[in-house]
Amino acid sequence: MSNISSRKLDHIELCAKEDVEYQFKTTLLEEVELLHDSLPELAVSEVDLSVDFIGKKLAAPLLITGMTGGADEATRINRELAQVAQELGIAFGVGSQRAILKDRSLAATYQVRDVAPDIALLGNIGGVQAAAMTTSEAEDLVGIIAADALCIHLNPGQELTQPEGDRDFRGVLDAIARLNEELSVPIIVKETGSGLSKRALEKLKGTGVNWVDTSGAGGTTWIGVEVLRTPPEQRNVGQMFWDWGVPTAASIIWARELGFNTIASGGVRNGLDAAKAIALGAGVAGMALPWLKAAYDGGAPAALSFGQDTLLALRTACVLTGSPNISALQQAPKILGPKLSHWARA
Amino acid sequence: MSNISSRKLDHIELCAKEDVEYQFKTTLLEEVELLHDSLPELAVSEVDLSVDFIGKKLAAPLLITGMTGGADEATRINRELAQVAQELGIAFGVGSQRAILKDRSLAATYQVRDVAPDIALLGNIGGVQAAAMTTSEAEDLVGIIAADALCIHLNPGQELTQPEGDRDFRGVLDAIARLNEELSVPIIVKETGSGLSKRALEKLKGTGVNWVDTSGAGGTTWIGVEVLRTPPEQRNVGQMFWDWGVPTAASIIWARELGFNTIASGGVRNGLDAAKAIALGAGVAGMALPWLKAAYDGGAPAALSFGQDTLLALRTACVLTGSPNISALQQAPKILGPKLSHWARA
Amino acid sequence: MSNISSRKLDHIELCAKEDVEYQFKTTLLEEVELLHDSLPELAVSEVDLSVDFIGKKLAAPLLITGMTGGADEATRINRELAQVAQELGIAFGVGSQRAILKDRSLAATYQVRDVAPDIALLGNIGGVQAAAMTTSEAEDLVGIIAADALCIHLNPGQELTQPEGDRDFRGVLDAIARLNEELSVPIIVKETGSGLSKRALEKLKGTGVNWVDTSGAGGTTWIGVEVLRTPPEQRNVGQMFWDWGVPTAASIIWARELGFNTIASGGVRNGLDAAKAIALGAGVAGMALPWLKAAYDGGAPAALSFGQDTLLALRTACVLTGSPNISALQQAPKILGPKLSHWARA
Amino acid sequence: MSNISSRKLDHIELCAKEDVEYQFKTTLLEEVELLHDSLPELAVSEVDLSVDFIGKKLAAPLLITGMTGGADEATRINRELAQVAQELGIAFGVGSQRAILKDRSLAATYQVRDVAPDIALLGNIGGVQAAAMTTSEAEDLVGIIAADALCIHLNPGQELTQPEGDRDFRGVLDAIARLNEELSVPIIVKETGSGLSKRALEKLKGTGVNWVDTSGAGGTTWIGVEVLRTPPEQRNVGQMFWDWGVPTAASIIWARELGFNTIASGGVRNGLDAAKAIALGAGVAGMALPWLKAAYDGGAPAALSFGQDTLLALRTACVLTGSPNISALQQAPKILGPKLSHWARA
Ligand SMILES: Cc1cc2nc3c(=O)[nH]c(=O)nc-3n(C[C@H](O)[C@H](O)[C@H](O)COP(=O)(O)O)c2cc1C
Ligand SMILES: Cc1cc2nc3c(=O)[nH]c(=O)nc-3n(C[C@H](O)[C@H](O)[C@H](O)COP(=O)(O)O)c2cc1C
Ligand SMILES: Cc1cc2nc3c(=O)[nH]c(=O)nc-3n(C[C@H](O)[C@H](O)[C@H](O)COP(=O)(O)O)c2cc1C
Ligand SMILES: Cc1cc2nc3c(=O)[nH]c(=O)nc-3n(C[C@H](O)[C@H](O)[C@H](O)COP(=O)(O)O)c2cc1C
Repeated sequence: MSNISSRKLDHIELCAKEDVEYQFKTTLLEEVELLHDSLPELAVSEVDLSVDFIGKKLAAPLLITGMTGGADEATRINRELAQVAQELGIAFGVGSQRAILKDRSLAATYQVRDVAPDIALLGNIGGVQAAAMTTSEAEDLVGIIAADALCIHLNPGQELTQPEGDRDFRGVLDAIARLNEELSVPIIVKETGSGLSKRALEKLKGTGVNWVDTSGAGGTTWIGVEVLRTPPEQRNVGQMFWDWGVPTAASIIWARELGFNTIASGGVRNGLDAAKAIALGAGVAGMALPWLKAAYDGGAPAALSFGQDTLLALRTACVLTGSPNISALQQAPKILGPKLSHWARA
Repeated sequence: MSNISSRKLDHIELCAKEDVEYQFKTTLLEEVELLHDSLPELAVSEVDLSVDFIGKKLAAPLLITGMTGGADEATRINRELAQVAQELGIAFGVGSQRAILKDRSLAATYQVRDVAPDIALLGNIGGVQAAAMTTSEAEDLVGIIAADALCIHLNPGQELTQPEGDRDFRGVLDAIARLNEELSVPIIVKETGSGLSKRALEKLKGTGVNWVDTSGAGGTTWIGVEVLRTPPEQRNVGQMFWDWGVPTAASIIWARELGFNTIASGGVRNGLDAAKAIALGAGVAGMALPWLKAAYDGGAPAALSFGQDTLLALRTACVLTGSPNISALQQAPKILGPKLSHWARA
Repeated sequence: MSNISSRKLDHIELCAKEDVEYQFKTTLLEEVELLHDSLPELAVSEVDLSVDFIGKKLAAPLLITGMTGGADEATRINRELAQVAQELGIAFGVGSQRAILKDRSLAATYQVRDVAPDIALLGNIGGVQAAAMTTSEAEDLVGIIAADALCIHLNPGQELTQPEGDRDFRGVLDAIARLNEELSVPIIVKETGSGLSKRALEKLKGTGVNWVDTSGAGGTTWIGVEVLRTPPEQRNVGQMFWDWGVPTAASIIWARELGFNTIASGGVRNGLDAAKAIALGAGVAGMALPWLKAAYDGGAPAALSFGQDTLLALRTACVLTGSPNISALQQAPKILGPKLSHWARA
Repeated sequence: MSNISSRKLDHIELCAKEDVEYQFKTTLLEEVELLHDSLPELAVSEVDLSVDFIGKKLAAPLLITGMTGGADEATRINRELAQVAQELGIAFGVGSQRAILKDRSLAATYQVRDVAPDIALLGNIGGVQAAAMTTSEAEDLVGIIAADALCIHLNPGQELTQPEGDRDFRGVLDAIARLNEELSVPIIVKETGSGLSKRALEKLKGTGVNWVDTSGAGGTTWIGVEVLRTPPEQRNVGQMFWDWGVPTAASIIWARELGFNTIASGGVRNGLDAAKAIALGAGVAGMALPWLKAAYDGGAPAALSFGQDTLLALRTACVLTGSPNISALQQAPKILGPKLSHWARA
């Protein structure tokens, strides 16, 4: 098994079994108070959750964000979650396709089109890898899985914490601008749990990218995951940065302010969180860890059931805020708590 | 026993015995600080707690809000509480009269005029039922119990959580406007524990209704009650919404701002809470759960004793704020804490 | 033993042994942050703690506020604390002299001039009693103990909680104005633990009184003491008001704003609290419960030792804020926390 | 062994083994949120941590603040830490050189130039001692250890808590002005854990001094250390002042506002704290207790390892805020929490 494959399995095991979430910092979604509407004047059956996303129509504004590939266990998870996405009409992303670059035979571990012909499907590659890649190599990653868009993920916090991680983050912005210009499908720039700050978003503005995925602080911490992979006596520095990052809710607000189409992720844990994220202006809400745990523990049936609950909660939130559709939910009356207001103004 | 009757008994049992209140959200009445007046220049005996309410004079601005009817146990509770209301000179409401619509023989479970000839008595029907009803059917509900007003209750949160609940909330506003215009007695629009938001109040403004009952968040949660009636493995979504709603204190402030005569209820638990609610501008303070618990556990004597304590506490609050009467208490100096100020401004 | 005598003993026992302080409300003195001055350019021996108070010079701005009299145990406590006051050069007040009105022979339980010839000594009577008294009767109370001033205490919260307490608080303001005009010594109007609100202070402004004693919330609660004297099953209403009142720090700020000479008391517990109270503008800091506990548990030696610590802490606070004297301490740089700032503005 | 020597050993033992830090007050550095930059466009190897400090170039903006000397155990600690400073290229200060004034033979316990020829080395003397010293005596202290600057420490809180401590703090400001004018090396005025308030900084402004070391509240409390050296029954007053002082973060902000070059110390505990302090505008971050504990428990190897972690964390913070060097880090985007904002504005 290659290094990457074995690291991927480590990651899945750790995420599924250990506590890999922020300790003291939260998403600040708990400070988003959606206001109850006792007189919705709506029928549940009337509520329309559908949205347009990278050229596809989603039955609901939900995304299973990219997690895995490149190993056997990954194959099962990718296929099960993609199938659930197909069944529910939501979007799905694969994990970093870097492994394919080294070993083409691993392509199959990412391929899900046979079980999920209609979904909005997202490819995935790291920013540092993208910088080292020609456009046609990137095009190839997209083609291998028949993706509708390519996610470029940013994770300097994780890399620095990983002994074998990248140490040079130059050229990523240029690569994003180039791929956004030249690739046949849209680029989505995503964090991986530390969130997109105003400064990072301003830099991205210059690249022409339309879609960002906040992947903010408050959910899975990849610095934390790497800390757990480190021998205890070498954890000092990583431990200090366990809670590093921009809370998801703040990142959504900033991304919207700067005019990005926004996927809200990082610590979104259920349909009510998703509703709050959308009420802050996000177009789609993404989750990783909850889907992984469902699939890891209970396979496709558990994941499907989790997805149905999520849709039901989202629909309930629409009715109880008097929102007949997602664009109404984006405007729903809400109150932001003091910490989030402070971040939003900063 | 009909489905409705058995559900009503479920509700009484759950409310009397389980923890059916909000978990993390409060009424925010705890953030209303009434200011002590060391020099009240009043005699206790001078303090006048009486108020006018829907054409009756109450000895004190208190209401036992509508809870039950339609089942045997309900009869006992309605009659005992109505008797206590008669003795104390306060108002009383029956629970939803929907059961009568299906089975006329249940009318007796709501009738209390023989034991409470003088009280301000409130009928009760759901908004969705009201929308399906002619004005003369509604008039009939009023007549059956000789009510002084009809409460139309709003509870979309509860309905959505109840597997057998309503799913279509259209036409409620029109029904309210029509009944307010055509009925022989005033309409009171009430929530049932999730509170009236500004948006809901603005919609109501258009119906011409004068009285609203906030029934805000922080006390009994009907979403919670329905969660407890659900098998554990189906509670996920309901559980997310357990604490959904607008805190009572915020709802009072908004209702007053929009010019409604306001009954303050939802988590009011004693005479000091009632005094705070009135100091925010409410005309009457209502409670449900505390009266139910008193009557359930100790019958009429316990309920009477609870009522006497409530009156004494309210009178004490009047003296210690230097308020000779209820309209003075409505103007009493007070300080609002940060969360409530934030809600009030929103 | 008379009813009053036995009640006085109850009070002493309860205060000395039970928890008779506020439960959730604080003085807000903990939100007064005195700012450290690393460069005081002072010698400790130079610091002058003396102040003028009702025609006497105090070695330090401290008062043992009025507590007792009218019973044997009271005599011992009054005499021991007066002796300590004499030794330290601070002021001392006796408890309510009401008992003398009923039984002249109890006068001796208040008399301390033989052991404390030089102290500023304060008489004490309730507002309701003062209203029922001629000026010459009040003059008599002053003369019996050779007092330098007469405290009129306000305690409607306590009275209402006490089954045998007063229920008519009319005429108190007039009596204060009259006695202030006609008595040979100054009047000090004091609360007894519930604090003076802005409204109460404004009413007092009209009486011409110069000195007030805040006796605010956060220390001994007299509503609480009376609750403890009540059979458990009758405590409901009293319990609700246990924490009723205006925090001491807020009351000091308001009294200063309205131009009163201010004694800061209620929950002051040591010399650092006293320094904070003075930095808010108070001229003298008063304590009751800590002196009672010291004297009750350890007699005069313990009280003396407590007093010496208090003086040392006050002196230390002067040096560390660069304040050569009390009027400098009143102007010392400080930061008020959010709750206190909110009260101050209200 | 002299009194001073034995007190010095007491201090080391207490600091190394007992809890000598603030109990409730913090540095407020935890309210400095550095904002993550997902797109640093930097290579780790490019990041330049070097700064100029009192005429020397430091490899990183770190200082081991002055702690000891004047006793055998002190010699070992001074030499080990100086060696680590030499190895890491950071600055080092000796503890108070007062002992030398009484016993010249103790000079050797401070001398480290043989093991640390290149470091920025700081001498140390108390403000009260400086006031009693001629300039040439001070020059001598500098010369004995070949220091690059002389720290004058301010510690009135500690002195007042120490039974044998100084009681007269006059003349310190004049001495600082004189030595700053006349000495051959720069003066650094430092607190010792209680922090420099705005008022103290304004006084210092008049002396012409350029460098201050905040040594603020939230780390080691020297009042606390002296409390632990006092018999339990005499701790009352000291205990009240345990948490006295200005939080480090506030002191940094004020020092920068007044235009001082600022060493940030007091409760800085690792490289991430150091990064936050620098982001508030400090030029150098100092620590005492963590270095002492490392050296005491594990000697030079443990201290070196602690230093390496600190550098790595600082470098990581630079990359993750997109700061190629220290002056960029000083401008890095950040959010201050509510308490710190309140202090900053005061
Ligand atoms: C097991 C696992 C593997 C992941 N692998 C990737 C990846 O390869 N590429 C990527 O962009 N993000 C990856 N992520 C990050 C997620 O897409 C997401 O941004 C992050 O976990 C925050 O969302 P959460 O709090 O819902 O987990 C992974 C997350 C998990 C839990
Ligand atoms: C057992 C029970 C039954 C209730 N049934 C009704 C009802 O039929 N109609 C209605 O309008 N509200 C009903 N309510 C809601 C109450 O009137 C009230 O709005 C709500 O419980 C909040 O007040 P509380 O916190 O004092 O209980 C019921 C409440 C309880 C506790
Ligand atoms: C045992 C005891 C008896 C008291 N009796 C009186 C009294 O007779 N008259 C009065 O004005 N205040 C009386 N007080 C109130 C005190 O003067 C003071 O206002 C109040 O206790 C708040 O201060 P503290 O928190 O330091 O106790 C008494 C307090 C105590 C503890
Ligand atoms: C054991 C020890 C001895 C100290 N001795 C001195 C000293 O002699 N002179 C001085 O200026 N500061 C002295 N300090 C104070 C430190 O320089 C520093 O200002 C203070 O401890 C706060 O930093 P910290 O929280 O990192 O410990 C001493 C600190 C410690 C822990």
